Amino acid sequence: MDQQEFERVHGFYLEEIEIGMSAGVDKVIGEDDVKAFAGISGDTNPLHLDDEFARKTRVGERVVHGMVSASLISTLVGCKLPGPGCLWMGQTLRFLKPVRVGDRVEARAEVVEVLKQKQRVRMQTTCRVGELVVIDGEALVWVPLRRYQ
Amino acid sequence: MDQQEFERVHGFYLEEIEIGMSAGVDKVIGEDDVKAFAGISGDTNPLHLDDEFARKTRVGERVVHGMVSASLISTLVGCKLPGPGCLWMGQTLRFLKPVRVGDRVEARAEVVEVLKQKQRVRMQTTCRVGELVVIDGEALVWVPLRRYQ
Repeated sequence: MDQQEFERVHGFYLEEIEIGMSAGVDKVIGEDDVKAFAGISGDTNPLHLDDEFARKTRVGERVVHGMVSASLISTLVGCKLPGPGCLWMGQTLRFLKPVRVGDRVEARAEVVEVLKQKQRVRMQTTCRVGELVVIDGEALVWVPLRRYQ
Repeated sequence: MDQQEFERVHGFYLEEIEIGMSAGVDKVIGEDDVKAFAGISGDTNPLHLDDEFARKTRVGERVVHGMVSASLISTLVGCKLPGPGCLWMGQTLRFLKPVRVGDRVEARAEVVEVLKQKQRVRMQTTCRVGELVVIDGEALVWVPLRRYQ
C-alpha cells in the first residue's frame, strides 16, 4: 500500500475536525444479526432468542442485544468520523429503550469537543429508532495529526 | 414455557445479589469473529481487516474491533451475572490496549454496589489478555425482585 492509497483510505486528521461535525449510519437489524452476535459473544440470553421467555419478563417481548445497536457506533467512529487511522479510546452507553428485530436503527455522532494537546475528540453518540432515542452516550477518540504523516 | 422452566432459565434475583459476587467468561477471538462483527456492524475499518493499512498506523498491526472483546461483557451480564431476566441499562468502556486475532480475552464482572430501592446493580467490568487489562469500565443493570415473580 503506497502513501497515496493510504491517504485515500485514511479518515479525518485532527486538523480537519471541528465542533459540530457529524456523521450517521443506519441499518435494519435482522434475525441474522441477532444470531451472528450471539455466536460471536456467546450471549444466548433468552431475552434475545426465546419469545416465550421474553414474554414473561418486564420488557414483554424479544429484543435485540444492546451491543448490536451499539455496534453501529463502532462503524461511525472507525469508518466515518474520524474514520480509519483513529483509535477508539472510550465509550459510554445508556441503553434507554428496547430495539426489536426488524427495527431500523440510526446511529449519529457529533463532535462536541476537540482536545488539541491530547489529540482527542469527544463526540455525542445517539442511536434512534424513528424519533425515539434508544441508546445515548459519548465517544472519546484519539486522532492522528496530518503533519506527522 | 411454564413457571418451573422459566425459573430454571432465569438468572439471579436482586435479593440474591451481594457485593463481591463475580463471574467470568473467556474466548479466543478468531478471524471469523472479526469478519462476522464487520458484517453485523458494517465496520470495515482497515485497521481490523487490512494488514498493510494497519502497519502504517500508530498501532502498527491489525487489531480486533474493540466491541468484539466488549461483547463478552454482554454475555456476562445477560447469561451469568445477573443473567436472564435482568436489563442492561448502561456500560462504560475504556479501550486501553489492542487485542490481536488469536488472543484469548477473559472478561470478568464483579458487583461493587447494590441499589436496592432502584433495583439496580453496579458492576466493575474488566477484559484481560493474560495479565494485561485491555478494557475496563462499569455496568449498570436492573434486576427483578423474586417477590414479584
